Amino acid sequence: MEAQTTIRRPYGFGKIVAVPYGEAIEKTRAALKEQGFGVLTEIDVQKTMKEKLGADFRPYVILGGCNPSLAHQALQADLGIGLLLPCNVIVYDNGDGTSAVEALDPEAALGIVGDNPAIATVAREAAVRLHRALDRLGASASATGGV
Amino acid sequence: MEAQTTIRRPYGFGKIVAVPYGEAIEKTRAALKEQGFGVLTEIDVQKTMKEKLGADFRPYVILGGCNPSLAHQALQADLGIGLLLPCNVIVYDNGDGTSAVEALDPEAALGIVGDNPAIATVAREAAVRLHRALDRLGASASATGGV
Repeated sequence: MEAQTTIRRPYGFGKIVAVPYGEAIEKTRAALKEQGFGVLTEIDVQKTMKEKLGADFRPYVILGGCNPSLAHQALQADLGIGLLLPCNVIVYDNGDGTSAVEALDPEAALGIVGDNPAIATVAREAAVRLHRALDRLGASASATGGV
Repeated sequence: MEAQTTIRRPYGFGKIVAVPYGEAIEKTRAALKEQGFGVLTEIDVQKTMKEKLGADFRPYVILGGCNPSLAHQALQADLGIGLLLPCNVIVYDNGDGTSAVEALDPEAALGIVGDNPAIATVAREAAVRLHRALDRLGASASATGGV
């Protein structure tokens, strides 16, 4: 059983993994860590919507992933780039036992930065690593599924 | 003395305020709050660079601002929009007694989301409020400057 489906948005990429929400978050954190991304921030969207608006929302978390070396390079190339950091990864519950994991596409974000070769290089490296993290996540999910 | 200079980037807008870094952060938080933006995340970039890389960097903070109502509308219109939330505001030290405060331009970020009228409406409202927050910040800074 490997119910994985690729998710592609103009501004991000991701996949559906055949594991429950909580497990998907843990696997995502581990996969990001393997690629040198620490999670600097975490927003529990469901909890925030409930507390601030009294609104019900699906389990949904926004993880702020940061590769310090890449972030440092980017900040040296463009002091304002902190406006686009950290690189977000979202995990949410699909309500059917599967979860979605998606990453902001650093190369798409680049589209609004303007022409800056140093930033483009960093964005490409970040994108490669995030793709790798998602691939690894897929491998783990498959393994869990008994493949 | 009102040493204020407008900062404009392809992906953000801001200003230089004639107050020290710590005070600029407090004023920014207050101005965001007035416009309905809570600060959900805070990344001390200087501290992070020192801890993770041993690198020296100027005092620099990334505040993750969130207007819950606008965020909820955006998430209902596009489940993936969490990849672009919260809306970052950066504050950094210019080393001359002034600080810079800049906000991610939600309408610029919209450029990578693709055509979605509901998201466009939310982005416009967020942009108006962030501009207002920066205007208020200017007013406070001027008052501090004795004007």
